[in-house]
Amino acid sequence: MTAPAPTSAPPTRQPLMALDQALSSLLASAQPLADTEVVDTFNADGRVLAQSLVSALHVPPQDNSSMDGYAVRCADLSSASAASPVVLPVTQRIAAGHSGQPLQPGTVARIFTGAPVPAGADAIVMQEEVVLGAGPDSQPLASFSACPPTGAWIRRAGEDVTRGAEVLHPGTRLGPAELGLAASLGLAQLTVCRRPRVALFSTGDELVMPGTVPPEAMAPGAIYNSNRFFLRALLQRLGCEVSDLGIVPDNRAATVQALTDAAQTHDLILTSGGVSVGEEDHIKPAVQQLGGLDLWQIAMKPGKPFAHGHIRRADPHSLAHFIGLPGNPVSSFMTFVLLVRPFLLRLQGVADVACPAQTLPAHFTVTKADRRREFLRVRRNAAGGLDLFANQSSGVLTSAVWGDGVVDLPAGTTVAPGDAVRFLAFADLLA
Amino acid sequence: MTAPAPTSAPPTRQPLMALDQALSSLLASAQPLADTEVVDTFNADGRVLAQSLVSALHVPPQDNSSMDGYAVRCADLSSASAASPVVLPVTQRIAAGHSGQPLQPGTVARIFTGAPVPAGADAIVMQEEVVLGAGPDSQPLASFSACPPTGAWIRRAGEDVTRGAEVLHPGTRLGPAELGLAASLGLAQLTVCRRPRVALFSTGDELVMPGTVPPEAMAPGAIYNSNRFFLRALLQRLGCEVSDLGIVPDNRAATVQALTDAAQTHDLILTSGGVSVGEEDHIKPAVQQLGGLDLWQIAMKPGKPFAHGHIRRADPHSLAHFIGLPGNPVSSFMTFVLLVRPFLLRLQGVADVACPAQTLPAHFTVTKADRRREFLRVRRNAAGGLDLFANQSSGVLTSAVWGDGVVDLPAGTTVAPGDAVRFLAFADLLA
Repeated sequence: MTAPAPTSAPPTRQPLMALDQALSSLLASAQPLADTEVVDTFNADGRVLAQSLVSALHVPPQDNSSMDGYAVRCADLSSASAASPVVLPVTQRIAAGHSGQPLQPGTVARIFTGAPVPAGADAIVMQEEVVLGAGPDSQPLASFSACPPTGAWIRRAGEDVTRGAEVLHPGTRLGPAELGLAASLGLAQLTVCRRPRVALFSTGDELVMPGTVPPEAMAPGAIYNSNRFFLRALLQRLGCEVSDLGIVPDNRAATVQALTDAAQTHDLILTSGGVSVGEEDHIKPAVQQLGGLDLWQIAMKPGKPFAHGHIRRADPHSLAHFIGLPGNPVSSFMTFVLLVRPFLLRLQGVADVACPAQTLPAHFTVTKADRRREFLRVRRNAAGGLDLFANQSSGVLTSAVWGDGVVDLPAGTTVAPGDAVRFLAFADLLA
Repeated sequence: MTAPAPTSAPPTRQPLMALDQALSSLLASAQPLADTEVVDTFNADGRVLAQSLVSALHVPPQDNSSMDGYAVRCADLSSASAASPVVLPVTQRIAAGHSGQPLQPGTVARIFTGAPVPAGADAIVMQEEVVLGAGPDSQPLASFSACPPTGAWIRRAGEDVTRGAEVLHPGTRLGPAELGLAASLGLAQLTVCRRPRVALFSTGDELVMPGTVPPEAMAPGAIYNSNRFFLRALLQRLGCEVSDLGIVPDNRAATVQALTDAAQTHDLILTSGGVSVGEEDHIKPAVQQLGGLDLWQIAMKPGKPFAHGHIRRADPHSLAHFIGLPGNPVSSFMTFVLLVRPFLLRLQGVADVACPAQTLPAHFTVTKADRRREFLRVRRNAAGGLDLFANQSSGVLTSAVWGDGVVDLPAGTTVAPGDAVRFLAFADLLA
């Protein structure tokens, strides 16, 4: 046998796209959703604020005590010393939530944490520094052995929040602290971006839904569909309404119909699988027919194949986004958290969608540099460094379960123990 | 006026308890809940696994291709070179989810990522390295210019998970990756610890619910109740069922009744406010009467006052936990995430409840050491260091909104720029 005359040129490698370029392109297409809704502050955890929160009051509302003790006029105590204490009558008692009377010269007020400082008082003395007694008429007396500095233990009105200040701006993702802050300003309801609606499709002949076939009865080549499980959880954590539309139909006409229908009522159609060069399914030609599709080869590992497109709707001014993730579980997981997560946050109006990174020491070795930017699953250890999971396979999520984050390793880089590397925590990537 | 004969000795400062000691004491009391329930894997995000997950299958199930390309017998290609390629007929095509036929010597198989490697094949050659052609009978031919190493681009059966291996152990908190891993083993349902039931009370005459009084009509000394908003969100993130029981009744008998009722149906009764030395409310004597109560002064800032106790139930072998947090918002928030969070995770059976910490450089100065361990609200900056929020007041949550974590500063410590400090991320503390 002799060499054949080639009928196809060797496929030239498609040039790889940098991850940052892919992210920029995705974010540029993410026009924030215009619709808002009003929700109870109690139910706003994880939502994105669509209004500016301006404080209508000072926090704290008045000067108040930051200690349990005695409100005094410093001038009354100017001569106080341990050798010669000053003794003054306790003429009132002010608890949090109650207003006292103006403090007369030569008197002091018992006061508790958070209680308003009475007019005339200019310092608080901690109760531990006061000796109590009683006069002949049972009048409570307090003995002071030092003069406090003016303003001691007084929290000033507006010290934490000034009336008129913007405390939260539109595009803020709300968490427990933000809800507490909004409540402290008296806000029982908040205007937030509506939830993005995401339709989730899976693709792949080999995929079997857990629960339908027991492990011992799995056909050769069959694997369980795991991607839709973590994708749905990740989408819900980002505030999305998820429609799980199951497996993509196995013919072109039905696929076109399913995508057309989903596009009318969803902001994003998300698939996993079917985006590699060699894979054949009906999704790619259907999306191309219904709108447009770019097939990227992203210079990241795990990851690489990634599809981004859109599907037109009946309304010509409106479209649904389409994103196709790779089918390998870890590739799907990592492209989701590094690309789809910021896309969905931006869709809700979040400005800063970057994941915070730390620089930490590697407690491992990478001897073989990769031409792609690598995201190695690692775990923080008790010594303050990062341990590497031995099996960086993209076929199963054991590495993402064992690890608590990834090292973002530039292309062409090796690592020696002690090298400072860039760490992204799953706690940040999955929040 | 002369100094009175003291009728009360100066209150000696109650010795402060170390935070670690408080945590140990809390965890020692947290007997994990015995009840479990079976939930769909789809709905198990955030729950705690109450079973051991042992894989009933290999992952991957068979040797399979990790590339799109051609399955070959290396022996057929031993003489291949660029100058003298070896040309072999392509006799079958194997896609993911399909099994091929045994590979006959002198033939190759077209194969796609994830597809089972046919019997007899011992390597995969990437499609980019193969030239295609056709023989006179239109038989597809593939031309190879090199011999691959044995095993090239083959993922071995069981490489990621071996049949019989324990992949998740009881007490694992489930997140998206864990759900995906469980699904990849065929598990559509999981046995998890039941949700802890938490009754939330607020205390404080000065507290006004947002929405009931507008800011301009707030009475002097009145402040909005913000703690119940963030506490409810934090509890829900930990998988708890929350009953918000509102403000503690303002008399002893009603308080005793409310606590008695709540204790019958809840695992934890959580209050905020009313635990400082000087504060007077009905909670403390009521809990003392109904079970027992320890009032701690914890050596942490913000924080310090903290109450831990229990309330007996009708069943003498069972009790409800009681935890009283300080009333200042940031004190309440920080004692929750540092003490109540690990307590509630342990109650669900989580063994390792410690928050992962990083060592990062301070980009700020602390000149005045505190006698308490301080938790300073900070934010990671673009230079890889930590910036300090200027106002570390515990009165309002602005610092926790601005920051993305805290520096855990030992008692008696000052900080200079560049010092390595211990950082705890809110993403970890709030997850």
